[in-house]
Amino acid sequence: MTITMQDVIAELRGTVPPIADTADTLDGASPETPVTSIAVAFMPTQAVIEQAASMGANLLVVHESPYYSHRPEHAPHLADDPVCRFKRDFLRQSGLAVYRHHDYCHRLQPDPIMTGLLQSLAWDTHVEAMLPTAAVLQVPARRAAELAAYVKANLRLPYVRLTGDLDMRCERIGVLVGYRGGGANAIPLFREHKLDLIVAGEGPEWETPEYVRDAASQGSPTSLLAIGHAESEEPGMRVVAEQLRGRYPELPVHFIPGQPVFQII
Amino acid sequence: MTITMQDVIAELRGTVPPIADTADTLDGASPETPVTSIAVAFMPTQAVIEQAASMGANLLVVHESPYYSHRPEHAPHLADDPVCRFKRDFLRQSGLAVYRHHDYCHRLQPDPIMTGLLQSLAWDTHVEAMLPTAAVLQVPARRAAELAAYVKANLRLPYVRLTGDLDMRCERIGVLVGYRGGGANAIPLFREHKLDLIVAGEGPEWETPEYVRDAASQGSPTSLLAIGHAESEEPGMRVVAEQLRGRYPELPVHFIPGQPVFQII
Repeated sequence: MTITMQDVIAELRGTVPPIADTADTLDGASPETPVTSIAVAFMPTQAVIEQAASMGANLLVVHESPYYSHRPEHAPHLADDPVCRFKRDFLRQSGLAVYRHHDYCHRLQPDPIMTGLLQSLAWDTHVEAMLPTAAVLQVPARRAAELAAYVKANLRLPYVRLTGDLDMRCERIGVLVGYRGGGANAIPLFREHKLDLIVAGEGPEWETPEYVRDAASQGSPTSLLAIGHAESEEPGMRVVAEQLRGRYPELPVHFIPGQPVFQII
Repeated sequence: MTITMQDVIAELRGTVPPIADTADTLDGASPETPVTSIAVAFMPTQAVIEQAASMGANLLVVHESPYYSHRPEHAPHLADDPVCRFKRDFLRQSGLAVYRHHDYCHRLQPDPIMTGLLQSLAWDTHVEAMLPTAAVLQVPARRAAELAAYVKANLRLPYVRLTGDLDMRCERIGVLVGYRGGGANAIPLFREHKLDLIVAGEGPEWETPEYVRDAASQGSPTSLLAIGHAESEEPGMRVVAEQLRGRYPELPVHFIPGQPVFQII
């Protein structure tokens, strides 16, 4: 039986009601195109799309845009950019369609991006509350610095960044994936769930990190562990690849892992 | 002769025309209050304001808000927050007024935040163009990784983060302070000034870092060095302290250095 791009998109979106003005678009193929082979990745870097094309995939399912903006169509600085053009031309010539699984993905209950991260950390059995944009956990108490080392080891990261009271014993943990490390998400989460530690992807440095540092200075210690945007969301895209593998056993489904974007010097 | 808060603010603002809806406010004292002692810092953390108060300063000049947001008055998640309240109460009880030197500071020509960073890097003699939000430099060619080590050593940083082609020889450098590392500022700067390397404070991970990594993959190598928001702007606040010291020799002017907010694990 033929599986089309639209079939795969419908499988990924599940029962989430239609989202107006979504970033989740299919580029490079019509929805009726038969899918012959799927690649899944967090970030469609130039290296990742070349690898997907060389594997013979005709559909690449990703979480972020290929074009360096959450909504590149609204970013005038990217119009006629040569790096974007090179990538667009490569995609066109390779016949690789790209579907962005972002907005619908985060609306699923549970969000596979969150469950993927919690599974990778072996924390899925410690969930106290699964909120729309965060998870609240109760774990056996350990020092913040020990938990940071645990997260780093389990996710096989070259480094993580920690602030607050590194020696405090933490048992109430909030998890915020992607860019949800900013103050608007993280500060109320600390307060409303009496958290000791938040593990987040990224966020502005002057918001949550400074809040956490000050709380510690004021004698109400908290800690923040910033693990990186991709590092917090890629495990969830592995879960998405497994979902597609289970649903379409007749199709090749490749997961392409990313490399850390930064090196520490 | 009495020097008032308003006198110091006028000195700092120079000849910049009035800015509507500015974040640069004086909190905790009326403009006519005599200044007895000034402290200057980049970020008014709890530790910094305690140090300023213990030094006997009655005016603290800072670059960022004390309250974990660029515009805390527009941030509903900070209303009634206990960490904000503790800090506000401490400031009130200590009699320490806080003036934020941000919007006017960045509009000065040249911007002391930029000149402070360039002086700290001994790059002020290499400026080719001083733009409103960036500096363009032509320096003797060195490998990107060598330049990263140079910046780290000169600013005495515990770490910096580098992406792109670490081995490429760089001689055309763009400098973007604070949060200007995002794509809207950095991507056109690379393009319009044929830059090899941008040195920036911070920005979203999926914008400029991924652009730079892809350009390198496409055979048009560039590099990005993210040094941290505070790390890129604090040298400029040292320059502001020197300016006030020179202008008001009769007043004590203390510069309070910050500590890196994150530790690498």
